[in-house]
Amino acid sequence: MEMSFLREQFISLFGARGEDTLARCAAPYEAPGESIEQRLAKSIDHTLLKPDADINQVRGLCEEAKAFSVASVCVNSVFIPLVKESLEGTAVKVCSVVGFPLGAMNSEAKAYEAALAVKQGADEIDMVIALGYIKSGAWERVEHDIAQVRMATSGKILKVILETSLLTQEEKILAAFTSVLAKADFVKTSTGFANGGATLADVSLLRVAVGKAASIKASGGIRTRQEALAFLKAGADRIGASQTKVILGL
Amino acid sequence: MEMSFLREQFISLFGARGEDTLARCAAPYEAPGESIEQRLAKSIDHTLLKPDADINQVRGLCEEAKAFSVASVCVNSVFIPLVKESLEGTAVKVCSVVGFPLGAMNSEAKAYEAALAVKQGADEIDMVIALGYIKSGAWERVEHDIAQVRMATSGKILKVILETSLLTQEEKILAAFTSVLAKADFVKTSTGFANGGATLADVSLLRVAVGKAASIKASGGIRTRQEALAFLKAGADRIGASQTKVILGL
Repeated sequence: MEMSFLREQFISLFGARGEDTLARCAAPYEAPGESIEQRLAKSIDHTLLKPDADINQVRGLCEEAKAFSVASVCVNSVFIPLVKESLEGTAVKVCSVVGFPLGAMNSEAKAYEAALAVKQGADEIDMVIALGYIKSGAWERVEHDIAQVRMATSGKILKVILETSLLTQEEKILAAFTSVLAKADFVKTSTGFANGGATLADVSLLRVAVGKAASIKASGGIRTRQEALAFLKAGADRIGASQTKVILGL
Repeated sequence: MEMSFLREQFISLFGARGEDTLARCAAPYEAPGESIEQRLAKSIDHTLLKPDADINQVRGLCEEAKAFSVASVCVNSVFIPLVKESLEGTAVKVCSVVGFPLGAMNSEAKAYEAALAVKQGADEIDMVIALGYIKSGAWERVEHDIAQVRMATSGKILKVILETSLLTQEEKILAAFTSVLAKADFVKTSTGFANGGATLADVSLLRVAVGKAASIKASGGIRTRQEALAFLKAGADRIGASQTKVILGL
């Protein structure tokens, strides 16, 4: 993989906007001053996304999130009102996935789901990128898909899930550039529903690609404290996890 | 499992509307006059739902569907305009999944995705039921979720995916009753994305539950001609399959 070739390809796709994006991605990342141990709890999106999760389980998730002082609670969009109510008056944010987990929902429908999640109280939106358009080389449609959701989530944190296990190295980098172009706040590795989750190599690669132009969320298969710390060390800003109690050693 | 107990439970949930639903479900199913071999091709929803399916693969799917004279092409909602265009002037229907595959999307967002799919040319909508509400025993919310999508798809075929592998026997039957109550045209076994697909036992069970008040689609893991014919014999009206060429022996 030749990064300079990918940069040229990105500029040929998006012209001056592409150049501007790459300039933003060139600013080097600096790790936060705090140690990874200090950062751990507040880096976690405490997550429950299985389709048969029930109301009581989501309530329990919120109680744990408050007790652990994590960054957010991350759920499917049907549970946003419940999570909003449960977290009222705390510092824990409300996070909803959108177009999840396939990313193959019509872009306008994705944006509608996101807008509704925000209206119902979501502070953060984790959308799945349009993988079919990536595989078709239709990068302008990939951008349009993210941009639609970006417009619907103005002022909120937007994370773009790349589902790295389904992408080539080149596609991962172009997808990260395109996410920055479309003004995403984060790129995120995985849904946890594909055949592979986060890898340290992918987090390092994404960090090289985006510099400090975007934050990085590692998710999918992170189940131990050691793993979570390794991902923070590799450059992740946020960790998606369901085994938060284990990770925090509680 | 005691069917009479479930009927009572359903009536206690939905009152006179529940009674009316059960009366409709009591009308016995009669198998079509044609043999299962004659029905096979026109019973198939030719399906491609993997997240990384690209434009060329979806075009190929449509060409096969036309050549095989199947019932429909079934894709994720991002591909509806492409499928509509590819199938123009043929008898093959356009089918879109909605709220797929977790069923945990906000009901209003599901309905929006469905309405947009219909606007873009979908003839049939395969929605995933709100599994989290089933697991919470919130059957009135399960009904509301289906009813929202039903309103958005007036005049079109609506199939409700129960994801039977995640449900108890009692939940399967109550979910089927609730789908009939909310005026679904079909109940459908599986998404193909959970830990289990269609079983003959589930198709038989659903047929006993709904009688002729709804059609039945079997999907998830049906890969051979023998399997497909067995599902039709067990009472399925429609088969979801990607291995259509193999199933039709072509």
